Formats: sequence, C-alpha cells, structure tokens
Amino acid sequence: MSPNRSPQPLAATPAATAVLAMVLTEGPLSRVDLARRLGISSAAVTKAARPFLDDGYLHELDSERTAPGAGRPVSPLAITPDREFVIGVKVTADEVIGVVADLKARIRNSAHRQLPDCEPATVLATLAALVEELLDADPELRGKTRRMGVAVSGDVDRVRGVVRLSPLLGWQDVDLAGPVGDATGLVVVVENDVKALTVAEHWFGDGVGTDDFTLVTVGAGIGCGIVTGGRLLSGAYGVAGEVGHVCVDASGPVCHCGARGCVEAIAATEAIVGRARLLTGRDGLTFTEAAELARSGSPEVCALFSEAGTAIGLAITAVVNLIGPERIVVSGEGLDAYDLFETEIRQAYATHAFGAAARCPLTIRPLPFEEWARGAAAVGIQTLFAPARG
Amino acid sequence: MSPNRSPQPLAATPAATAVLAMVLTEGPLSRVDLARRLGISSAAVTKAARPFLDDGYLHELDSERTAPGAGRPVSPLAITPDREFVIGVKVTADEVIGVVADLKARIRNSAHRQLPDCEPATVLATLAALVEELLDADPELRGKTRRMGVAVSGDVDRVRGVVRLSPLLGWQDVDLAGPVGDATGLVVVVENDVKALTVAEHWFGDGVGTDDFTLVTVGAGIGCGIVTGGRLLSGAYGVAGEVGHVCVDASGPVCHCGARGCVEAIAATEAIVGRARLLTGRDGLTFTEAAELARSGSPEVCALFSEAGTAIGLAITAVVNLIGPERIVVSGEGLDAYDLFETEIRQAYATHAFGAAARCPLTIRPLPFEEWARGAAAVGIQTLFAPARG
Ligand SMILES: [Zn+2]
Ligand SMILES: [Zn+2]
Repeated sequence: MSPNRSPQPLAATPAATAVLAMVLTEGPLSRVDLARRLGISSAAVTKAARPFLDDGYLHELDSERTAPGAGRPVSPLAITPDREFVIGVKVTADEVIGVVADLKARIRNSAHRQLPDCEPATVLATLAALVEELLDADPELRGKTRRMGVAVSGDVDRVRGVVRLSPLLGWQDVDLAGPVGDATGLVVVVENDVKALTVAEHWFGDGVGTDDFTLVTVGAGIGCGIVTGGRLLSGAYGVAGEVGHVCVDASGPVCHCGARGCVEAIAATEAIVGRARLLTGRDGLTFTEAAELARSGSPEVCALFSEAGTAIGLAITAVVNLIGPERIVVSGEGLDAYDLFETEIRQAYATHAFGAAARCPLTIRPLPFEEWARGAAAVGIQTLFAPARG
Repeated sequence: MSPNRSPQPLAATPAATAVLAMVLTEGPLSRVDLARRLGISSAAVTKAARPFLDDGYLHELDSERTAPGAGRPVSPLAITPDREFVIGVKVTADEVIGVVADLKARIRNSAHRQLPDCEPATVLATLAALVEELLDADPELRGKTRRMGVAVSGDVDRVRGVVRLSPLLGWQDVDLAGPVGDATGLVVVVENDVKALTVAEHWFGDGVGTDDFTLVTVGAGIGCGIVTGGRLLSGAYGVAGEVGHVCVDASGPVCHCGARGCVEAIAATEAIVGRARLLTGRDGLTFTEAAELARSGSPEVCALFSEAGTAIGLAITAVVNLIGPERIVVSGEGLDAYDLFETEIRQAYATHAFGAAARCPLTIRPLPFEEWARGAAAVGIQTLFAPARG
C-alpha cells in the first residue's frame, strides 16, 4: 500500500480497530455485547464508535427494548455498507476480473478484460482501464470509491505492495501497488489470491465468528489460507498454507517444485489432464473432456479423479490434524469435476482425521471466478483498519 | 488449575502480563526497550513493573550509561529466578519424573519414582510422595514453591485440569489438577506432554523471541507443538499438532488410529521394532537391538530406519509448508537411533520444503527424559500469568 496516499486508515487505535471490525463482520451488535466480547468497557466502545458514527460508517439501529422495565433501551451498532465502495481485481495470465463491492463485500458491479500479454505495463494499463469502466457504470460508485485490492497468484509482499514471484505471470519483484495507485488515484493493496479469498471467507463468509479457519482451493494450483487466533498465517519466511506441496505419496509423480508426490502433482487440473492425455493418447484432451471420459465410464480416467480426490482429502486432513480449525472450506474453479472426487475427499477425511478433529465441518463447494475478485475487494476493505493485518 | 487455591496469578492486566513475560523470557531489558517492543508507553511499563519489583520477582540491574552525556542512565529490568520455584512432573506408564525449577526453568533438583500401576489413585499417591521428596531436599525450595505443572500424554483439558483421554495410561476423564492440588497444597496445572515441552522450548529454549515456532517429538509417539502468533495451538476441537497422524503414504502400514500410512505407523519406536521383529523373526527384539542390527550392516533393518527418517522428514516438511515457523526443533527419546535417520530427515526436508520455507532452520537433537518434567515446570511457571494462555 502506498504510504503517502490518502485516505488514511479509519481506525487508528486497537479499540477502534476491534470495534469497527466486529461490527463490520458480525454486527449489528449492541455496545454492551461489543464490550463483553472484546473485553473492554462499554465506555471504551462508545468512545471508539463515536468517530465512525459521525463519519457515517456506522449507524444505530432503532432502539430495542427487550421487555418493559428491562432497563435502558439499546441501539445496536450496524455498518453502513454503502458508505464507501471498494474495488477488487484478480489478475490471471489471460485476463483481469474486477468487481466493485460494498463494505460487506457484496458485489455491486463487475467487469473483465482480456490481457494480450502479462507484461507489467500491459497489466497496469488494463487494470487502470478496468477501474474506469467499473466506476463509470454508476456515479454513486465513483464518488465513494477510494480503495482497491489486487489479487495475484504467487508470493506477494503485501506490506510493500510488491509481487515477489509469480511463476504464472512470469513476474519477479514487480511493484504493483505503487504504479496502480498512481494510475487510479486509489489506495491499493496487493495480496496473494488464495490469502485474499481466505480473508473474504473469514470476514464475510463461512469463517465469520471463528478464530481458527481454513480455506483450501483446488484448481490450476492447490492452495490454502490458514487463520489461527484470528490472524492469517503468512509464514516467518513468507511461505505458509502451501498445502499443494504436502507430500502424500513419496513414490508419486514429480511435481513442478521438484519434489515427488506433492498433492499438486496428483490433483491439480494440469496434473489430471496430463495423466489423462498419457492414458488416452489424446494430446489435445481438455480437463472438461477428461471429466466427461471419467463420467462416461472410462475406469482408468475415473481412477485419476479418484486418486486426485484422495490426495486432496489427505492434504486437507493434514491441515486439520495439525491446526485444528473450527471450520474448513474447500472450493475451486475446477467445479466441473466435483462429482468425480467429492466422495474420495470426504472418505480420506473421515478415515484420516484424528479423533475429535473429525468434528471440524468440511464444506465443499464450487468457486465462481468472480469470487477471486471479491477476495481482492475484501483485502481492500481491510485497509480501513490500522495496523494492516492479514 | 484449581480456581480457589491461592496464590492468584501475579500478573492480572494485559500490560503486566506482557511486561513480566517479556522480561522473563528475553530479559534483561530496559523500560525503553520493553515499551518499544510491546508498543506501549514507558510510563505504562514502569507502572506495570512496579508491583513485580516490590514483590521481588523483578530487579533492576546496575545502571548502564552507554556514553558520557548519553542521557539518563537506564537500569534494565531482570527476572529474579530464585524468587519462586516451580515443580514439574511427567507421568509415564512406568514412572513419574519430577524436577524443581527456578523461574528461568533451570532445573535445581530432580527425582523419580516407579509406578506399580497406572490407576489414578496410585499415580496421585506417587506424585504426592515425589513432591515431598523434591521439597525435602532443600529448605529454600519448600518455602518458595507454590506451583506445579503435570505433563501427561494424551488429550488434556488444561483449563479444567482434566485428562480427557490418555490411551497410554488407560485414563478417561480423570480430574488430576484438583486431587493433586489437594494432596500437595500447590496450584496445579495439567497439560499434554508435547505441548508442555513446546512451552519450555518456546519460552526458555530455541523458541525464545519467535512468534511462530514448532517442536516435533519422535519416540513412542510422534507429536508436535505449534506456536503461531505467540500462541500455542490447541485446536478448535481440542486436537492440533497431530503430526504423527499425517499420512505420508496412502498405501503404507495401518496405524493404531485406524488410518493407513500415518507417520506414527512407520516411524514410532514401536512401529520400527514391530517391523524389525517381522523381518528378523526375533520376537523379543528391542529398539536398541534393532538399531544395533541396522548399524552392524543388516540392510533390511537399516532400510526400516531410513524409511522412518523419510516419513518424519515429510511430516516435518508438511508443518513447515503449512505454518511457516521461524524455527523448528525435532527432539525425542529415541535418540539412540538419530544416526540412523537424521540424514533421511534432512534429505526429505531439503527436497520437499517449498521455496523460502526451506530457510527455516531445522534443529535435530536428543531429548533427555528429564526435559519432559522441565516442560511441566514451564507450564507451572505460566500460572504466574493471567489470563492463562498456552
Ligand atoms: Zn510440489
Ligand atoms: Zn494414525
């Protein structure tokens, strides 16, 4: 995030951050409930909420009185979702997908543009044009949009706004937040795409209210965002959540990372298609065609999907046995094939989850591509807060 | 921990807890350094430290003046290690091992007693006698010892002081903290043994100063304690750090948990011995004898150890790829055999650690049995703090 570009974060103290974040993700909530859950005084809640009420980010709901004579009426605090809008953009190798979302991360508007190439300058120009298109759609949006999140696959330094390494885009040490901020006039934050999606799910989806939450994505890559103690893990050396490179079969196929038997070498889209091509001798076979072959009764191709499901299930179970999340969501763009491996994922989980760890609910569901851009918007919403935390 | 037994925790506010914990684990530190590192004012540090100075838990070192005219002299704050002593006891199926440690978790005295059986009443009586023996050794210790930690393998509810399940001891829902507290007059906290060892290592060993730290133990079981964001993971459903049941070979041997290919089914002491017995046809073969066979050139037995090392290495790497700790320590009582699998552990780690995750230093070292009791003492030291946190 560019440090010199207004607006500043709204919430500058720990109490203000905590109050705003809790109302945003779990509100409406009364001041008394907020005080109890945050372990601070009601007076501190009132003081922290005041500026947000004045600025219109929060509002008071109509007074509730639970029973006659039950004491002072309480007016729960609620977020005002359309006080500000945030842009979220996902950059892939082929296109950029953008959304405008309100402060509850609900999508108001979306658009996408093809990328002729992945050169940083090309991506920058396309991003800037996409932002214009998104804001042109509605005058209300233009006036109220000041922040933007960008999601990129690879190793991202969120604090510096730099993409350290993105094999998919062929990027190394590309400063993205600075130039995109200059081009759009917005406060820009850049985050790894799986982490951004995890933020969206933790703050606005199935992870709301949990301190320990995990999201696994299955598709071209197999990734994972892990929240422990309310904090998104980023790894002491910048690597965490690399569930795709957990080894589930030491004598398995070689992965692009050089190791053998990684989940990604067995269950990523490319891995399945590659093996299906070898099996069938059809060089141009697509993932969709492979899935059709499996469904129409090719036992060999079907076995590839089963194997992939088992590998994914074992990797998920490793996360659950190690971290013990409250909930785990498995999602991904390879949703065409869920019917082919959901059973195996659940079977591996049931067999390998250790003891009470098996009580962690496993949700498996498709991931519309727009969700990636919504993830970026969720990270943009986090720039309301200081200190910036994952 | 028994809630009605004095002494109360020393540190009752977040600031007091933070100051005392940081001086204890990383001191001596000046008030200015403490303020900077904790993100609070120097005045708040001074206020928080005052009662500990008055009570003798902290003391000021002689004033340091870095250079003439360099401003006010600073008197770093240091812990007074012998202000209080803490007992730590590890309960195994055969014996109880106890230590008395100072506030830096340095062992002052140790003792152990055989257990005729694992009945809770037997263990309770033996623990009480062991505590008497430990305190009788030195009048200074008796006068200054008020807290005790007990470490047990299995599923422990630290807050309630109850051993929920310990297959090794054959226990289910055994209240340990209450009766041991009644018998000894000490404040008693019970913790899982691997977690207790992780606390000792995080607060007083290789983990000092890290927010993200992992300890893996290898022996009769294969366990793991994971610290993220300074907090020891306990799992939303009470299960975390179960690295022993991460699957590294879906077609591997069946584990006692019922799943196939768990690390523990390949690399735990029993697993190695069991497979060595099958290979050699020698029913009474011990672990030490198996290790000797491997060293004296039996390639089949040697391969068992190599396979175990690889399995351990893969499991460690799963932790590193998922969590991204700053440091990882592998330790265990099976130290007799380290020479037989250290190479494979390091090789699997080097091959499978993903990208920069490989920068996490991997320390492999033996674990004297007394260390388990020291781990229990470290957990006892944590009862100085409120709120009780892992
Ligand atoms: Zn890999
Ligand atoms: Zn197992």
